[in-house]
Amino acid sequence: MPYDAVTDAAPVVVMGELEPYASPHRLTGARVEGDRVAVTWDDGREARFHRIWLRDHCPCSACRHPQTRERTFDLVDYGPVPQPAAEVTPDGALGLLWPEGGGHHESLFDPGWLRLRDDSGGPAGGDGRGFWDAAGMQTLPQVSWTAMTTTDAGLRTWLENLSRYGIALITDGPTEGEEVLGAVERIGWPRETNFGRMFDVVSKPNPNNAAYTAIKLEPHVDLPNWQRPPDFQFLYCLENAAEGGASLLTDGFAVAEQLKREDPEAFEVLASQPVDFRFQDETADIAFRAPTVGRDADGALSEIRFNNWIRDKLRMPADTVPVFYRAYVRFWELLRDPRFMIRFQLQPGQMIGFDNLRVLHGRESFDPNTGRRHLQGAYVDRDLVNSRLRVLQRGGA
Amino acid sequence: MPYDAVTDAAPVVVMGELEPYASPHRLTGARVEGDRVAVTWDDGREARFHRIWLRDHCPCSACRHPQTRERTFDLVDYGPVPQPAAEVTPDGALGLLWPEGGGHHESLFDPGWLRLRDDSGGPAGGDGRGFWDAAGMQTLPQVSWTAMTTTDAGLRTWLENLSRYGIALITDGPTEGEEVLGAVERIGWPRETNFGRMFDVVSKPNPNNAAYTAIKLEPHVDLPNWQRPPDFQFLYCLENAAEGGASLLTDGFAVAEQLKREDPEAFEVLASQPVDFRFQDETADIAFRAPTVGRDADGALSEIRFNNWIRDKLRMPADTVPVFYRAYVRFWELLRDPRFMIRFQLQPGQMIGFDNLRVLHGRESFDPNTGRRHLQGAYVDRDLVNSRLRVLQRGGA
Repeated sequence: MPYDAVTDAAPVVVMGELEPYASPHRLTGARVEGDRVAVTWDDGREARFHRIWLRDHCPCSACRHPQTRERTFDLVDYGPVPQPAAEVTPDGALGLLWPEGGGHHESLFDPGWLRLRDDSGGPAGGDGRGFWDAAGMQTLPQVSWTAMTTTDAGLRTWLENLSRYGIALITDGPTEGEEVLGAVERIGWPRETNFGRMFDVVSKPNPNNAAYTAIKLEPHVDLPNWQRPPDFQFLYCLENAAEGGASLLTDGFAVAEQLKREDPEAFEVLASQPVDFRFQDETADIAFRAPTVGRDADGALSEIRFNNWIRDKLRMPADTVPVFYRAYVRFWELLRDPRFMIRFQLQPGQMIGFDNLRVLHGRESFDPNTGRRHLQGAYVDRDLVNSRLRVLQRGGA
Repeated sequence: MPYDAVTDAAPVVVMGELEPYASPHRLTGARVEGDRVAVTWDDGREARFHRIWLRDHCPCSACRHPQTRERTFDLVDYGPVPQPAAEVTPDGALGLLWPEGGGHHESLFDPGWLRLRDDSGGPAGGDGRGFWDAAGMQTLPQVSWTAMTTTDAGLRTWLENLSRYGIALITDGPTEGEEVLGAVERIGWPRETNFGRMFDVVSKPNPNNAAYTAIKLEPHVDLPNWQRPPDFQFLYCLENAAEGGASLLTDGFAVAEQLKREDPEAFEVLASQPVDFRFQDETADIAFRAPTVGRDADGALSEIRFNNWIRDKLRMPADTVPVFYRAYVRFWELLRDPRFMIRFQLQPGQMIGFDNLRVLHGRESFDPNTGRRHLQGAYVDRDLVNSRLRVLQRGGA
């Protein structure tokens, strides 16, 4: 959070949003400079805002719907934005008077809100995600089932770890069955897929998917063949008496950064060359094409799509094929390198939550004749996780 | 579909996929050339495939799980791919013998399958989407409720139109209520959001969203504040007796192309500069940041994010602000230009389906005192629409 001085003081001007923006700093100066308005706070800090940006962000009840808080000011109907008159109000806020329709429209901007918006250099870098290797993840961040399911603080801690590290454990839960849906409901609702709203991971006689066998599972993400794959996966352990079957997890973002350091060309091909994925059974045929390493609009790592089973026929320019395979194999080696991969045995009553598009998961093979192994899984959207976390974080850091 | 010669003939080699690949053309030649294998078909066509690509795509039951059809061959454990011996089998397929572990591994490739994979220049361009303006969409593509809900052919036609034009109408349906969910269930299941699995569009006394008022709605997409917004929206009309309230729809991809023609700089800023969106109420706080015009990994238009109500504070470098606003206003003007926008009155028993991230929707204001207006809406994932369509298209073009 970029705000520098949250206080208990109420905001000077109601800006129609829930994020805190109160600040002890008031404006001492405001003047029009060409197509911008320059302001000065009482600690000497200065900033400039385009007048079109200011007009577009007017918080008055004519420009924002008073109940929904949504913007009802339509710039498209406004025409060129005129030069306003600028002043500092007695409260230290910014007052602007816009000549409109023979009269004036008044906009008031809270000084703390404006201070938050002064990102002259664009949004701040660093997203606070703690990329990890095996040495840095010797103890999984964990919260008890009781704390997660009955207290806001427990849920918040668990979600903060899940969001920051892409991995968080729940311990000491019951083993009645379907607890995984109870965990999901603390956040929102499950993301349904072609495997249902919840799925049982057991060895099945007629598997349509490698997870339903007893074989070793190489590190992978689930459902990269979906345009919109599930973001988070929760795996709840009900029984784990079979020999083998340890869980394997690797931070794919840490591995992508490592690949970038040691072989920038390999990283670039994984980050730019789309790969096809496809899953087909009797009733479904779900396919998508995207790079192995995804980046968001600001260039930050945003997703990994790696799943060797359902990687479809590779379509790419012939000259790219050799470098792609070199990059793909090296990425895979790093994903299961003990330097990056952690290994643990999930116990009955434990649930592991992980970011399906960042932390790749796998498991060692197990012997279904030595005992029963039964996990239940469900998926949750990142939108819901982030929303729940923001709501829990309201009203204080 | 890029295949040139689907026939009734069975494939020569089972490649473990459902997409048709049978072809009358057989191989007449195969030889190793450096790190590639060159093949010739009986019509003289030639192609070259990297040997690493061929080894990776071996369809035998040791390299592909015989039940799940998923790839079980792990390139990461293989080491350098050796030079194979190549031959044409008596059936005209490609046979490769790989020296492995003191013996040989045999791979057989169907000649029709290889022909499909010969995309020497990369994937074919042109996605078959019919961008439209108002003159080109004077009659909405439509299917009756009975055909869509009771026949595969009706459903397929409706989905083909929805996929191609981003818009398709259902007519002559009942008005009992919740039909919209019945339509969704023909395809899969609804995409749940913070507005539920289904939502009623009526004028509400305490709206948390502009759709629940009676005001005019400017063209917009729903939920661009989600990282994963709903892809398709179905709006089912139960009552429409109020004065006003006509539906307005515009193909945002056609408009984006128009903007690109008339002002390439404006298009580029909309396609590259991320914009924040945010929705907040008492229980949710859902925010995401993405460009107005999205492109997929191959550079094709993939989504529009435009919704002036929930556009959040604009964070971008100060020098970009003026060109962004110029682009944004011009894009908005084009979205509601009668050259691009279509207008129609949805009748009770009709359902309009549209691509929420391509076809922007709006409505004229209505007077809730003149009669009741009641629509029911639901969302569906593109993954499910595409999957259903592929399954319906199996076994013939």
